Amino acid sequence: MRFEHKDLLDISSLSPQDITMILDTAEGMKEINKRPVKKVPTLRGKTIVLFFQEPSTRTKLSFDIAAKRLSADVISISTGSSSIVKGETLIDTVKNLESMSPDIIVMRHSSSGAAQLIARKLAPSVVNAGDGLHAHPTQSLLDMMTVREKKGKIEGLKIAIIGDIAHSRVARSNINGFTKMGATVNVTAPGTMIPKGIETLGCHVAPDIESCVEDADVVMMLRIQKERQENILFPSEREYASLFGLTRERLARARMDAIVMHPGPMNRGVEIANIVADGERSVILEQVTNGVALRMAVFYLVAGGKKYADKD
Amino acid sequence: MRFEHKDLLDISSLSPQDITMILDTAEGMKEINKRPVKKVPTLRGKTIVLFFQEPSTRTKLSFDIAAKRLSADVISISTGSSSIVKGETLIDTVKNLESMSPDIIVMRHSSSGAAQLIARKLAPSVVNAGDGLHAHPTQSLLDMMTVREKKGKIEGLKIAIIGDIAHSRVARSNINGFTKMGATVNVTAPGTMIPKGIETLGCHVAPDIESCVEDADVVMMLRIQKERQENILFPSEREYASLFGLTRERLARARMDAIVMHPGPMNRGVEIANIVADGERSVILEQVTNGVALRMAVFYLVAGGKKYADKD
Amino acid sequence: MRFEHKDLLDISSLSPQDITMILDTAEGMKEINKRPVKKVPTLRGKTIVLFFQEPSTRTKLSFDIAAKRLSADVISISTGSSSIVKGETLIDTVKNLESMSPDIIVMRHSSSGAAQLIARKLAPSVVNAGDGLHAHPTQSLLDMMTVREKKGKIEGLKIAIIGDIAHSRVARSNINGFTKMGATVNVTAPGTMIPKGIETLGCHVAPDIESCVEDADVVMMLRIQKERQENILFPSEREYASLFGLTRERLARARMDAIVMHPGPMNRGVEIANIVADGERSVILEQVTNGVALRMAVFYLVAGGKKYADKD
Repeated sequence: MRFEHKDLLDISSLSPQDITMILDTAEGMKEINKRPVKKVPTLRGKTIVLFFQEPSTRTKLSFDIAAKRLSADVISISTGSSSIVKGETLIDTVKNLESMSPDIIVMRHSSSGAAQLIARKLAPSVVNAGDGLHAHPTQSLLDMMTVREKKGKIEGLKIAIIGDIAHSRVARSNINGFTKMGATVNVTAPGTMIPKGIETLGCHVAPDIESCVEDADVVMMLRIQKERQENILFPSEREYASLFGLTRERLARARMDAIVMHPGPMNRGVEIANIVADGERSVILEQVTNGVALRMAVFYLVAGGKKYADKD
Repeated sequence: MRFEHKDLLDISSLSPQDITMILDTAEGMKEINKRPVKKVPTLRGKTIVLFFQEPSTRTKLSFDIAAKRLSADVISISTGSSSIVKGETLIDTVKNLESMSPDIIVMRHSSSGAAQLIARKLAPSVVNAGDGLHAHPTQSLLDMMTVREKKGKIEGLKIAIIGDIAHSRVARSNINGFTKMGATVNVTAPGTMIPKGIETLGCHVAPDIESCVEDADVVMMLRIQKERQENILFPSEREYASLFGLTRERLARARMDAIVMHPGPMNRGVEIANIVADGERSVILEQVTNGVALRMAVFYLVAGGKKYADKD
Repeated sequence: MRFEHKDLLDISSLSPQDITMILDTAEGMKEINKRPVKKVPTLRGKTIVLFFQEPSTRTKLSFDIAAKRLSADVISISTGSSSIVKGETLIDTVKNLESMSPDIIVMRHSSSGAAQLIARKLAPSVVNAGDGLHAHPTQSLLDMMTVREKKGKIEGLKIAIIGDIAHSRVARSNINGFTKMGATVNVTAPGTMIPKGIETLGCHVAPDIESCVEDADVVMMLRIQKERQENILFPSEREYASLFGLTRERLARARMDAIVMHPGPMNRGVEIANIVADGERSVILEQVTNGVALRMAVFYLVAGGKKYADKD
C-alpha cells in the first residue's frame, strides 16, 4: 500500500486507511527517537522549508527535529524576515520558494485555507502546520497516535473535548479525526466558544463539563487562547476555571482509566488544575514525544508517495 | 583554469573570463538541484556564515539552500541578535567571527563598501550579498546566467533596465556586468531615479520607457523600493505605473522573443503588469532557480580557489 | 578517567581534575578546527537545543559552530519565538523540550540558577551558557584554556580582573576557576561595582587599577554592561575610562609578558584602550577561537559521560 497524497492539508481529505497508515508509520519512527543515534538517512538531499507566518515554539521545533532526524536539510523562514513585509503577495512568495526546488513546505498561516491554496499551486508537498481556525492535522494525528497507543484502539472510545472550540483548529481536526476513526466525540465550552452548527462535524454538544466528561476514555482540554478573544464576551479566567477547568473531582466522572490530553501550552490553573496536568493519567508530554515521530512519518509518506511509488 | 579571487565583492573586480567561469560552473550546479538527492559533499566540513544586517528573504534563503546542497555547515546571524546592538564595531564583530574559523562569510549590509572593507581585513572568503547602493554581484550573475541560458549568449544583446536606478545596487551590478560581457544596456526612469553620471558605467539613458524597450532582447524591471524613497520627490504608484510600468503594449515594442526579468519581490500593478509578470516571456521564477545554482557555484569557486589551487 | 557530570552548570561543581580534563580535551578539539575539513562524526544523531532567553551573538554562535563541527543536529529557540510569550512556565517549556528527546540543552537565562533548576528536572544534559549574575562556566573555561596555553600553567599565576564585578557572571566564574586552579586573583572596580563579600570567593580586592595590575601575569578587563546599570550611581564613560580603563601605561605595571583578555564585546576607549586591545599582548581573539574548541569539548564530555561510560 502506498500513501496517495502529495500534501497533508487537513483530516477531512484522509481516509481511515490513510490515518492508520500514518499512525503505523509513526510508531516505527518513534523507535528511531529512542536510539543513541537518532537519525536515519531517509530524506538525505531533500530540502524542507519551515514557513511559519504565526509564532510557534513546539510545533515548529517538532517539525524541525523531525526533519533533521530524517537527514533532510531544513530551511526556516519566519514572518519578520519574509518578503511579505515588502508587500509581496503570498502566492509570489511561495512561487519563489518553489523555484528553489524544496521537496516539502511546512506552512503555518493565520488565514484558514492558506495551505490548501498554495498546495494547489505548487509542485512540492505542502504540510499544513495550522491555518487560521481551519485545521491542524498533525496535531490531530499525534493525538490519535497517543490515544491508540494508550488505549490499543480508537474505535468505540468516548472522547471529551473541552474548551474554546470556536477558536480551535485543533478541536476541528480532532472532531473530524476521532469520529472518522469510529470514536464518539462530546464537546463543551461556554456558549460563546461553541460555534453554531458544530454538530454537523459529527460531535455532540454537552451542556456542562460534568456531563461531557462522564464515562469518557479520553479527556482533552484545549488551551484558552487569550490572544484570540479580543472581541467576544468572555468569562474571566477565574470564572472559566470554576465552570470549565479540569479538576480532580471532575476527572473522577470519567472512566477509571481515562487519559488526560492537552495540545499545550497549558494555562495551569485555568483550563487544567496542576494536580491533573501532572497526574498519572496525564499523557500530555507523551503527546509531544509522539509529535516528533508523527511528523517524521508525515514527511516520509508525502516524500515517499512520490519517490517510492514504484516500490509498492 | 582556476578562479583567482578570495572574495566575490562586485562585478567590477571580475574579468569576462571570471564571469564565464562562474556561469559555466553554475550550469553544472543546476543539474544537482534537479536530482532526487539534491546534495553533494563538496563543502563538507566547511563553515559558511550568513551575516545579514538588512532584512532579506529570497537572497538569504537562496544562499542558505545553496550552502546546504554543498553539505556546508551554515550559521546565521541577523541584525537583532548581533553584538552590534551592544555597541561593538563592525570590525570587531567580524574579527570575532573570523576567530571561529569560518570558511566563507556572506554579508549583506546597509553601507556601500562594507563587504570590501571586511574582505580586506579577513582571511575567510567574503561574498557580498548586497552592500548599500553599491553592488549585488550574485544577483547580477544569476541574471547573466538566465540571459545566457535563454538567449544562448550575452554579447550583442540589447538590455533594457527600467526603474529606480539611483537606489538599485542590482542595476549598478547589471550595467557593469552586461556591458562587460558585450551587451548594450539602456536604462530609463523618472528623473529623480537616474543618478548623474550613470553613463560613465557604460549604459545609455533613454528618455522614456518606450524608446528604452524598443528592440530589446531583455527587459529588466526593477522593484520600486518604497523603503528607500523617503526624502526625494517621487511620483505616486499610479503615476509611476502609467509612465514606467511594463504593460503588454510596451513589451510589444521589444523583440518578438524578448524575455522579461525582475529581481523580486515585485510590486504587481506598479512596475510590472500582472499579465506580463505571469506571461510566457517572463523568466522571473527561472531567475530564482538559477540563483541557487549560481550561489553554489560562487561558494564552490571561492572555496576552491584556495583549496583546489594545486589541482589546476 | 571519565567525566562524571551529566551537566555543566558552574565552575563550583567542578574539581580541578574535571577542569584539567576539559582543558585537555579542548586542546584536542582545537586541532579539528584547523583542518580543511573541520568536522568529526562524534555527535552524529545527537540533538542539541540552543535555548537562549537573552540576546547573544558570540556565545550562541560559538555553541552553534561547536555542535555542527561534531556533526550534531542543532535546533535553536530564542525568546521571541518561545511559548513563554504565551504564558507557559519555564518548567513546562523545558519539559516539552525534553519530550522531543534532545541530548543536550544549552541554556542562557536572565535568572540566576535557571540552568541548575532545569538540570535537576531533566534527563538530557544541560550546559549553562550564562544564568543571570550567577555563572558563565564555558567562558571561564575558555579563559583558563587560553591562559594555560599562553603561560604553560595556571597555578601560581597572578590574575587581575578589572570591571563591573557586581554584574558579571564571567567574573564570578573566573574568580572561582582561577583560584581553584591555584592562581591568585585580584579584582578592582568602582565601589558600586564590587559586591560585598566578594572576598569569600577567594579573591583580593585592590584599591585601584594600578595596584591590581601590579606584577600580574594576566590582565582581564570586563565589559561595562550599560544595559545592567539602570538603577545604580554610575560614573560616566569618560570617568570610568580615566579611572579604570586599561591603558598602555597601566599595562606597563604588569609583568613584561602579561597577556590581556576581554570576554567581549569590547567598549573600546572605555574599559580598554585601542592600542591595548589590538596590541601584541592581547589574546582577545584567541579567546574566541578557544571558545569553539572548549564548547566542543564540553559537548563531547557531557555526552560521553553517558555514552562512552563503559570505555574508560
